[in-house]
Amino acid sequence: MSPREDEITGWLREQRELPPAVYPIAIGDDMAQIALGQGASVLITTDMLLDGTHFDLRTATLRQVGYKAMAASLSDCAAMATVPIAAVVAVALPADFSVQQLKELHAGVVSAADRYDCPLVGGDITAWKGNEPIAICVSMLSKPGNSPPVRRNGARVGDVICVTGSLGGSGRRRHLEFEPRVREALKIASRVTLNAMMDISDGLSTDLNRICSQSGVGALVDAAAIPISDDAKLDADPLRAALNDGEDFELLFTLSPDEWDKLYRLWDDPVPITKVGRITDGGRMQIRMPDGRIVDLRPGGYEHLQRDT
Amino acid sequence: MSPREDEITGWLREQRELPPAVYPIAIGDDMAQIALGQGASVLITTDMLLDGTHFDLRTATLRQVGYKAMAASLSDCAAMATVPIAAVVAVALPADFSVQQLKELHAGVVSAADRYDCPLVGGDITAWKGNEPIAICVSMLSKPGNSPPVRRNGARVGDVICVTGSLGGSGRRRHLEFEPRVREALKIASRVTLNAMMDISDGLSTDLNRICSQSGVGALVDAAAIPISDDAKLDADPLRAALNDGEDFELLFTLSPDEWDKLYRLWDDPVPITKVGRITDGGRMQIRMPDGRIVDLRPGGYEHLQRDT
Repeated sequence: MSPREDEITGWLREQRELPPAVYPIAIGDDMAQIALGQGASVLITTDMLLDGTHFDLRTATLRQVGYKAMAASLSDCAAMATVPIAAVVAVALPADFSVQQLKELHAGVVSAADRYDCPLVGGDITAWKGNEPIAICVSMLSKPGNSPPVRRNGARVGDVICVTGSLGGSGRRRHLEFEPRVREALKIASRVTLNAMMDISDGLSTDLNRICSQSGVGALVDAAAIPISDDAKLDADPLRAALNDGEDFELLFTLSPDEWDKLYRLWDDPVPITKVGRITDGGRMQIRMPDGRIVDLRPGGYEHLQRDT
Repeated sequence: MSPREDEITGWLREQRELPPAVYPIAIGDDMAQIALGQGASVLITTDMLLDGTHFDLRTATLRQVGYKAMAASLSDCAAMATVPIAAVVAVALPADFSVQQLKELHAGVVSAADRYDCPLVGGDITAWKGNEPIAICVSMLSKPGNSPPVRRNGARVGDVICVTGSLGGSGRRRHLEFEPRVREALKIASRVTLNAMMDISDGLSTDLNRICSQSGVGALVDAAAIPISDDAKLDADPLRAALNDGEDFELLFTLSPDEWDKLYRLWDDPVPITKVGRITDGGRMQIRMPDGRIVDLRPGGYEHLQRDT
């Protein structure tokens, strides 16, 4: 379904107009926001992870799976610079799954929950009739931090495009052990005004395209500036891995050049932040290749488009 | 996993002591409650429904499946007399699932969402690598109505035990088309003080046992008083069906005899409410059989225990 995901999300969003006073943020962002009156609001995200698709139990431990499921949702909270407050976890288990195995899965969930002070407050344990694979669904609540939740649709022409950490190659190991950028997101949002943010779950090229299309802008990425992870450097084409690999779970954000200067000057965190490009007008994503050529950048790739130019 | 469910839930609950000021209701009730400050709070429930376990796509339509998934969560909101406010839905789909099929599933979700003013605000669409069966996970938020959320652990000795509607035989059809008792629950809770409530998802005998064990009380059920559904009357043993069949999604609640008299006098709703027994001390569930004998009632059955008496 993945290539059609944005199309389907767009269709879903069009099905119902929700009153923005009660539902300030609905389908299409990292989390939905629901107003509860008297200034209080809560945000919610849900993520379903499947054995064979998002993890592989032939190589991953149940503890890693539980950790990843929670960490992916924590990353959604980070994506809007919100504070995680509680999670519920529903699991579909093979009929022969043991209580001991369930406890290992739970240990992984709790290890992430404890790290980010986001307790497991409920859940649902169900079993397949046979030995169909595990599905684990985490739904997480957060609340706004000191700044309003940062959306995807606020990028402005002239903005600096930034990422945290380094990109690509997470499939090798990091997708099971990554650190969601909850603290970094709250730290950044408390120091400067962000115009748009999300977490990178489908690769920089795909996720930047989401910010651009939801904000009605374009982008020019500088290939030489992209922080390529050590894992991606092992790839035959490290730049392509950094642009297109999924599940980096780093932050992708845009802010004005002045705010960027301020942030960069103040930044004292071990997790690096890197300027990788600029928001442009015209709704087109482009990339300046290391050899200086500027070519179109599309979700999931740049190579086809090189032929066109 | 089902027979061990309460044991596992008990184990999960013991893993972490949560501060009740922030988490007034956590694992073990129909929904968890999270306080957001300034008197605001939100409740959350999550439910995973599986093809082959909770529905069967050889006989059910995708629209029915979508409806059931939402209605089961709405029933959790009803179970505590809370007001549904928003839902997110995550689905795991077979690789060959079509967009048209997804729209049918969505139509079912929305038909329940619209009926109870509980919009779909987000979700996640994932696909198996192969043609593993559908899993659908609904997480729903609610807020307290005019009364505090009604818990499972408040039943008191002397309370009247009541149910809405009629019980048993829902597997024949009703489990796909039932009406969650959201309106009835709010109506009841606005008129009288309830001591304990939940929805019947695993059968009266199992769910009443949950109220008894969480409240530290016993119960004496009057078999002759149990409202047996027309579907259950087709069963070889209608009483057993009414006691043990799952997925009635009716309300089970306890209240003082005075409150019951008041409620019964005022009740003008087409959905019947019926007194089926009394809360007793001693922590033992019993049933007065139609022939007058009093025998032990255990979760999922009474017949084994007849032999013991």
